Amino acid sequence: MEWEFNEICIVGLGLIGGSFALNLKLKGFPGRITAVDINPEAIEKGIELEIIDRGSIKHSIAINADLIVLATPVGVYESVLKQVKPHIKEGCIVTDLGSVKGELVKRCEEILEGVAPFVGGHPIAGTEKSGVENSVENLFANAKFILTPTEKTDPKAKEKIKKLWEKLGSKVIEMDPYHHDRVFAAVSHLPHVVAYSIVNAIGKLSEDTGENLFEFTGGGFRDFTRIAMSDPIMWRDICIGNRENILKSIKRFKEALTEVERLIEKEDKEGLKEFFQKAKEKRSFIK
Amino acid sequence: MEWEFNEICIVGLGLIGGSFALNLKLKGFPGRITAVDINPEAIEKGIELEIIDRGSIKHSIAINADLIVLATPVGVYESVLKQVKPHIKEGCIVTDLGSVKGELVKRCEEILEGVAPFVGGHPIAGTEKSGVENSVENLFANAKFILTPTEKTDPKAKEKIKKLWEKLGSKVIEMDPYHHDRVFAAVSHLPHVVAYSIVNAIGKLSEDTGENLFEFTGGGFRDFTRIAMSDPIMWRDICIGNRENILKSIKRFKEALTEVERLIEKEDKEGLKEFFQKAKEKRSFIK
Repeated sequence: MEWEFNEICIVGLGLIGGSFALNLKLKGFPGRITAVDINPEAIEKGIELEIIDRGSIKHSIAINADLIVLATPVGVYESVLKQVKPHIKEGCIVTDLGSVKGELVKRCEEILEGVAPFVGGHPIAGTEKSGVENSVENLFANAKFILTPTEKTDPKAKEKIKKLWEKLGSKVIEMDPYHHDRVFAAVSHLPHVVAYSIVNAIGKLSEDTGENLFEFTGGGFRDFTRIAMSDPIMWRDICIGNRENILKSIKRFKEALTEVERLIEKEDKEGLKEFFQKAKEKRSFIK
Repeated sequence: MEWEFNEICIVGLGLIGGSFALNLKLKGFPGRITAVDINPEAIEKGIELEIIDRGSIKHSIAINADLIVLATPVGVYESVLKQVKPHIKEGCIVTDLGSVKGELVKRCEEILEGVAPFVGGHPIAGTEKSGVENSVENLFANAKFILTPTEKTDPKAKEKIKKLWEKLGSKVIEMDPYHHDRVFAAVSHLPHVVAYSIVNAIGKLSEDTGENLFEFTGGGFRDFTRIAMSDPIMWRDICIGNRENILKSIKRFKEALTEVERLIEKEDKEGLKEFFQKAKEKRSFIK
């Protein structure tokens, strides 16, 4: 199977963009990889680590790319696309690695209309770290990659993006962009919001008890709150970008929390056991 | 340093009791380890795995023990103590491995008054699994062990328990039993209640969207909800036993959650960034 692209330009060289570049190299991608980042240090590190071949703080570096990959926080997609648009060459495809789809895919398609086909994508992989220097080998291997085509999506462009991710070892799943946002509001965005909230709550409880409660946490807590180390800007943008679905998920979660709170208040032993048992069974679905 | 005990009897041979026995053996404890469990299969497995020397479903097996260790769910401590009490020999010390202290320590002291000194303890270690067959080597090494003496606690008995845990590699910290319950309501009990709740919420959201959302979870979610696989009976008993502190922690958590919910509703970018940034900084305290 041939590689479909000669030059790939990554816009936003953080952990995800960097891991994408790193794994292309590791899989033997023979073409050139370039990057744009507002932070010149990210570009320098990327070159130093031999993850990218060239980079710039200017979007004009995308001029020879036949694939442009948005890997910035989702809140700046529109501004980034407007800056890169004058430099997109004919035949170039634009895709992304962001956690929000829905309306945002539609906006990207509108901005790029008549210039380049846009194919929305979301790799279900990452770590709580940030920065190109934390790029991870095999990050996308055996992970799901959600492709979110619309009725406007160019079928050939979609096929090329699909093949590219399969080369990185991902399992590609197609999903409607709006449905994507409902699904990931529940299984990804809600857990992050909850993890950040519990850490802040324990900050408050530390003030209540007059000591640093974080000193008494064990391994369970460490795993439970690891995702609260994730990049605040990235998560701010996701919360704004998928606002309505996240609010719905929070609502459902508050209902569950209120249910268990009532059971504890009433000292309802049977009810508590059932509540925990039900969760344990559902969670057992995940290995 | 000598071992202070000749025969140790563990009441409740699950993951924690089993790991305690296993690590005593691994550290070269030369005495006999016995166990009581209502489930004869747990005893059989414990013997088969060479974790214990003898066991029974009857509490009378504790008759020669000079240390009795409660490792059952905290909800049955009183009933267990009443059953074992007639068999406690002179000079024997009673301790425990439970996650609730406070009033429960007082009750244990009352039940054992004139029979044996009670020393409350709580190893800050565990896994989401259950059962003696899942006992973990070095589970307590480099982990905190919280010793919760009261004004009634026998100083010699306390010292012996302290030394025992230091032999297992734990860092022993003394804490007032009531303070213990406030601290662990925040850093352990709240996260468990939240993890169970989020899994149940995603169960509801799966019904809302008409598909099994657990299929789309990634590594972050897996870590985040691992503790929701913990034993429902154990956690039911902890929630009842530390009811008031857990309810206070839930209240604080709900406040934090409502704060972030309002920020999302208002699309307050600066506020969201600050909320996430604050949590990230606090969480960075834990390595």
